[in-house]
Amino acid sequence: MSATDDLEAVKALKARYFRLLDTKDWEGFRALFTDDVAIDTSAAGGTVTTGADDFVAFLVDVLADAVTVHQGHMPEIELTGPDSATGIWALHDVVIFPTGLRLDGFGHYHETYAREADGWRIASSTLTRLHQDFRGGDD
Amino acid sequence: MSATDDLEAVKALKARYFRLLDTKDWEGFRALFTDDVAIDTSAAGGTVTTGADDFVAFLVDVLADAVTVHQGHMPEIELTGPDSATGIWALHDVVIFPTGLRLDGFGHYHETYAREADGWRIASSTLTRLHQDFRGGDD
Amino acid sequence: MSATDDLEAVKALKARYFRLLDTKDWEGFRALFTDDVAIDTSAAGGTVTTGADDFVAFLVDVLADAVTVHQGHMPEIELTGPDSATGIWALHDVVIFPTGLRLDGFGHYHETYAREADGWRIASSTLTRLHQDFRGGDD
Repeated sequence: MSATDDLEAVKALKARYFRLLDTKDWEGFRALFTDDVAIDTSAAGGTVTTGADDFVAFLVDVLADAVTVHQGHMPEIELTGPDSATGIWALHDVVIFPTGLRLDGFGHYHETYAREADGWRIASSTLTRLHQDFRGGDD
Repeated sequence: MSATDDLEAVKALKARYFRLLDTKDWEGFRALFTDDVAIDTSAAGGTVTTGADDFVAFLVDVLADAVTVHQGHMPEIELTGPDSATGIWALHDVVIFPTGLRLDGFGHYHETYAREADGWRIASSTLTRLHQDFRGGDD
Repeated sequence: MSATDDLEAVKALKARYFRLLDTKDWEGFRALFTDDVAIDTSAAGGTVTTGADDFVAFLVDVLADAVTVHQGHMPEIELTGPDSATGIWALHDVVIFPTGLRLDGFGHYHETYAREADGWRIASSTLTRLHQDFRGGDD
């Protein structure tokens, strides 16, 4: 593959991340990550999770009954080796929980990617926030 | 053209779709479609339309006096033959009708593209929705 | 560099524009422009500014204490010479001023780019608006 092909492959990987998350295709979503992926959303009020299985189990628990929209923008991807890359994505997300609580948020993902035998995977992801609004909910 | 050029050409085609729709350049917009384009927005509360002329006439009727914003994200484009491609795009749209009724929506376009003598065209487009909010209006 | 590399370089330049603006990295932001950049936001209620130093000084004055989100979409980039390009980007922006005044806006940047000794720079930028909402504030 050329460097251009790798850039497009990483973009396609992250596009699938957003779409499979929002359409709740958890099995397809799981396959996007390295087994030992490191997820850090602590700067956005979340947690630190290691391992794709644990991360997906967490998301199913929190988001399976929520309406979610996650849209990514303006990737800055750099190939850092034959099988590794870094990327930054802007995020606009909407999450509407069954309680009626609604989040409208903006921020950035800071990520690394690894090429495995069957293609590129998300190896780590840290979310930072520019702004988030919460409204509604039962309380 | 290389495969990379074709991918960029399809992205440019869809970018023009969004911009010419929102700036109401109906003649330029019409030229983006195959004559027999199949449009299906039924899953988003719309209709099924066949033919670019009928589709544009419908849009002029419904949207010419509305403020519209349609923004597309994270294309997943695959070349399926020398002159054919498929694509999925995330959508964020805002439509403000003269009555004051406002839609804020999110979803995905599932599309096919065909290369004609003078370049790539949208051959079919099906819209699905993740979420839509309606507010305002006369009623 | 290939034409593909140039397109990706211009996309990366504008991605940095959005990210460095919203994270208030003013020194990094300044370096994205030609010294004599021409900025025109008059169609969006703004001003005409010439020169990168003046433009950044203006932004620091107006936005340093505001929360800002600027997200760009669907670039239409054309290489117009070995060291020049044009581009159109859709914009979704949110600006929350210390007074509480909040702008949610949509529009397009119409830009030119120039390749200098150390890479591509933004040479001119004109902002047009599809829609903007203002709410809140002290008054």
